[in-house]
Amino acid sequence: MDKKALIILAPGFEDIEAATCINVLRRGKVEVIIAGLNDLKVLGARGINILADKKLSPEDAQTDACILPGGSQGAKNLASSQLVKDILLKMAAENKIIAAICASPAIVLSPLGILRDKAATCYPGMQEHFNKDTAFKDSEVVVDGNIITSQGPATTMPFAVKILEKLTNKSIAQEVSSDLLMR
Amino acid sequence: MDKKALIILAPGFEDIEAATCINVLRRGKVEVIIAGLNDLKVLGARGINILADKKLSPEDAQTDACILPGGSQGAKNLASSQLVKDILLKMAAENKIIAAICASPAIVLSPLGILRDKAATCYPGMQEHFNKDTAFKDSEVVVDGNIITSQGPATTMPFAVKILEKLTNKSIAQEVSSDLLMR
Repeated sequence: MDKKALIILAPGFEDIEAATCINVLRRGKVEVIIAGLNDLKVLGARGINILADKKLSPEDAQTDACILPGGSQGAKNLASSQLVKDILLKMAAENKIIAAICASPAIVLSPLGILRDKAATCYPGMQEHFNKDTAFKDSEVVVDGNIITSQGPATTMPFAVKILEKLTNKSIAQEVSSDLLMR
Repeated sequence: MDKKALIILAPGFEDIEAATCINVLRRGKVEVIIAGLNDLKVLGARGINILADKKLSPEDAQTDACILPGGSQGAKNLASSQLVKDILLKMAAENKIIAAICASPAIVLSPLGILRDKAATCYPGMQEHFNKDTAFKDSEVVVDGNIITSQGPATTMPFAVKILEKLTNKSIAQEVSSDLLMR
């Protein structure tokens, strides 16, 4: 199978959301590339320093999924990067999986038009940043085609398992969610 | 208030459990000291490198709570450290909060006698390592006096919120759990 997922860490990323997505996908044998937006060492929203595997570069678009953790400052930093925009638009055009949680659906994906005519969710209240052509759904995880969105720290685990299921299959996702003790 | 919590990261620590505890306590304004067992750079069970704030040292026992994430290799590494044992036994004797999750209650706390005559939980199946004088409870989080134990990645958030409640109060814990979108 050998699926590859890219997770982009910008300063101020939400630590729970990032660690949970990386951990869950790696449990399911997806290759996860942790890319730092500007540096290898990236400081999360609650002061956890994570060392990325590499600095983000254009060829990272050659993966099967792009995952954006939230954190309001982290999402703003992602949104203001031309490289992040280029990678997201390229991957969305190729119908690859785009997954975003918390502030990122509203702050990063919506302005790029990636949520156009899609159902999506985000941290409750932030849907005011959605374009009018996006249908906000108040659910933990929303899947619409190749776009997977979720709400915040407490919804990260089902979000990560859904990304894993899309990249692999239901049986691997169920095995991992059982090992994680999800009920 | 100014409560301080120590979290010890040993190579092979469970990344979700570590990041969630640090994040939740810092949201509640608890000062969290992330101490690396041997080095500042510590590699988690799923390949996430976290930079600790400091290397673990004896004076870290002068905190209000000690938190041990799981991960089976991480727990083994904690259990084989004389410094970790000294800190835990000192803090337990002073009736400070000792919190452990996943493999750590069984692999680290039980052999030290810290769970003696206590109710506790751990990753299901690992209770075979409990001494006979410990009552295993199959619950997400078990609080018995100053000892807080929990089962695994999916139970980390309620575990962390319970530690926060013990260190601060119910109202702060409720505010943080609501911001995290816990239901």
